[in-house]
Amino acid sequence: MADFALIQSLLQPAETKIVLLVLDGLGGLPRAEDDKTELEAAHKPNMDRLAREGCLGQHYPVAPGITSGSGPGHLALFGYDPLRYEIGRGVLEAVGIGFPVTERDVCARGNFCTLDSHGNIVDRRAGRISTEECTRLVHKINQANIQLDNGVEVFVEPVQDYRFVVVMRGDNLSGEIAETDPQRTGVPPLPALAQNPESQITARLFNRWIEKASAVIRDEYPANGLILRGFAKEPGLPKFRAIYGLRAAAIAIYPMYRGVASLVGMDRIEHQARNVQEQIEVLAQIWRQYDFFFVHVKYTDSRGEDGNFEAKQAVIEEVDAALPLLLELKPDVLIITGDHSTPSQLRSHSWHPVPLLLWAPATARRDGSTHFGERACARGGLGTFAATTIMPLALAHAQRLAKFGA
Amino acid sequence: MADFALIQSLLQPAETKIVLLVLDGLGGLPRAEDDKTELEAAHKPNMDRLAREGCLGQHYPVAPGITSGSGPGHLALFGYDPLRYEIGRGVLEAVGIGFPVTERDVCARGNFCTLDSHGNIVDRRAGRISTEECTRLVHKINQANIQLDNGVEVFVEPVQDYRFVVVMRGDNLSGEIAETDPQRTGVPPLPALAQNPESQITARLFNRWIEKASAVIRDEYPANGLILRGFAKEPGLPKFRAIYGLRAAAIAIYPMYRGVASLVGMDRIEHQARNVQEQIEVLAQIWRQYDFFFVHVKYTDSRGEDGNFEAKQAVIEEVDAALPLLLELKPDVLIITGDHSTPSQLRSHSWHPVPLLLWAPATARRDGSTHFGERACARGGLGTFAATTIMPLALAHAQRLAKFGA
Repeated sequence: MADFALIQSLLQPAETKIVLLVLDGLGGLPRAEDDKTELEAAHKPNMDRLAREGCLGQHYPVAPGITSGSGPGHLALFGYDPLRYEIGRGVLEAVGIGFPVTERDVCARGNFCTLDSHGNIVDRRAGRISTEECTRLVHKINQANIQLDNGVEVFVEPVQDYRFVVVMRGDNLSGEIAETDPQRTGVPPLPALAQNPESQITARLFNRWIEKASAVIRDEYPANGLILRGFAKEPGLPKFRAIYGLRAAAIAIYPMYRGVASLVGMDRIEHQARNVQEQIEVLAQIWRQYDFFFVHVKYTDSRGEDGNFEAKQAVIEEVDAALPLLLELKPDVLIITGDHSTPSQLRSHSWHPVPLLLWAPATARRDGSTHFGERACARGGLGTFAATTIMPLALAHAQRLAKFGA
Repeated sequence: MADFALIQSLLQPAETKIVLLVLDGLGGLPRAEDDKTELEAAHKPNMDRLAREGCLGQHYPVAPGITSGSGPGHLALFGYDPLRYEIGRGVLEAVGIGFPVTERDVCARGNFCTLDSHGNIVDRRAGRISTEECTRLVHKINQANIQLDNGVEVFVEPVQDYRFVVVMRGDNLSGEIAETDPQRTGVPPLPALAQNPESQITARLFNRWIEKASAVIRDEYPANGLILRGFAKEPGLPKFRAIYGLRAAAIAIYPMYRGVASLVGMDRIEHQARNVQEQIEVLAQIWRQYDFFFVHVKYTDSRGEDGNFEAKQAVIEEVDAALPLLLELKPDVLIITGDHSTPSQLRSHSWHPVPLLLWAPATARRDGSTHFGERACARGGLGTFAATTIMPLALAHAQRLAKFGA
């Protein structure tokens, strides 16, 4: 993997366009009946043509044997070593509901819980209250308009069931704070405890907020208390424009993927697209304004997690049918891959390497592949590599990197 | 990549011979008409036989996506991580003209320039004077026999057009000196400025030399001034004999490659060979005196940079025709590869991985390859790897490395 300083030192201007088309959870396992994976079984004449014209490989998002979550998987695709750069749980939860996290924010995941008359926890999930009830309680807390010192703002948003998110925004906040969840019942929630001197002010602000918010819901039932976990400061990742010299746009339907993209400095494009065809129509509208386009397709992963082989295959076929519209724009580099594997047989993310197709009409070294699939990728010309090398490869094929050394 | 300390700790004596045959810029791209690269299109029965008997792979000289210069590419082939070990520009320029740089040397690239009556630069390249004029001026400076303190010697050599090289040789010299080129006209050349305390004496010596050399050419025109760039100390690389226990010889026609080889401790063999056949005849003469032979063929790269597919292919065929002579010597390990790719379609170095053939009759694990080519290498038994792993592989196949651990 090349480091960011090296990449920056080699950047040269170009007018080229790069498209990174991510089919979430793309990789699969062959089924018994015909020994084909979802990708191999799919009827996808466009991808197969691109495979013949481009070259294939397979990548590990984190490391061999490591099953990647969506956050690390996307960081790796964007060139950030996920073992070095981390998006804290609270931030991931906030971006997951579309909250526009800024560099001044510390986020925490919250649970409503049930307390007894002594203030001890009886149920850490408040009887798993509904999302509607959660939303009502969050609204009630927001109505109370809790004020904190230091010009600090607080945002509270419902997530799902008993879960919500708290975002504190201000200067010099820090997220090194231990969770207030004691992980057992019969004891009261813990105070927010700073884990280093820099976090003491932030911990004090959270404790004040907890006190006031708890007072607001004291007479509710069963959700008459709250606990906070996963405190995390916005990670302050180096930004796409600074590292790669790219004006980058994210076209994702799910908020979390727009959020992760925005954390690396991509513009999150607001749109009404409901499928990949419409996403590509959005892409066409902004084609001139950007150099790099991240298009995220969620449903390969969703159908994989459903355990529905045919439905995952159908999503791949739907993406394939939308490709001609994308190719009309004449991208210089098109990469089609996933952020991890989600074999429908396993109904979950997996550690298997992820197939990748690199198409670059001017510079790809055709590798003799005849179609896009896991086994073709394992034998592809790009070999097996860390996902963090995808961005340097994309920049090279976009002729955006000068020679290293004389 | 294995580190040098590990390799050193495992060295065991052997009588085996290793040949590293580098076809500069070997890797290519398939052309449209028959979908073959230069290497794939070449008629090369000997290499194809070696591919059947040996095994193939492909390597990245620096990192995926990074286009390597010749300096870093060769360092990597010799086992030195080019992101860690660097040959400064001045040193590369000096070795490029065959100047025998030693560990006591600091080298700088020079430009003759044109100054006006106030000493301000009018033309940073002195009207691009001819190499002959440059040679005459360098001779005039050398005739002046400029003396410096501290027992320091100075060597000045013409390079090409308005360019020359200055080498200062002495004890405790340092190359951390900023260039004297102000990068614009209308201002005088800058003084040589030390960038750390260790370089102050060296900077003072260079300033004294600049003053005296400038006086020598003051009345010339248009080359009546000079500027220095790329100050660099001989890199002090660990040497082949110490790391690998190998007596190594370099048989290269171009001075730069002899120079880089000498920086890693190879003996640069003086010879009159004008082609690879004659290089191998030279190799045969010194066969008993050395353990490792670096044979460098420049013209694959040159013809690639010319954009001449057929001519590059012809160079590969010429190398193939010379192989029987090499094989008569019965090397224990023969590696045929490049220092980077130079596809004739791109007319330049490129980032594409470099094909590699490893032949070792006693120990190669045949991988089923039937010929030597980029696609065969991408599917080869050695996989895709960093170029710095080539030397450990060569030593292993030469039975020069003991077992690690019990």
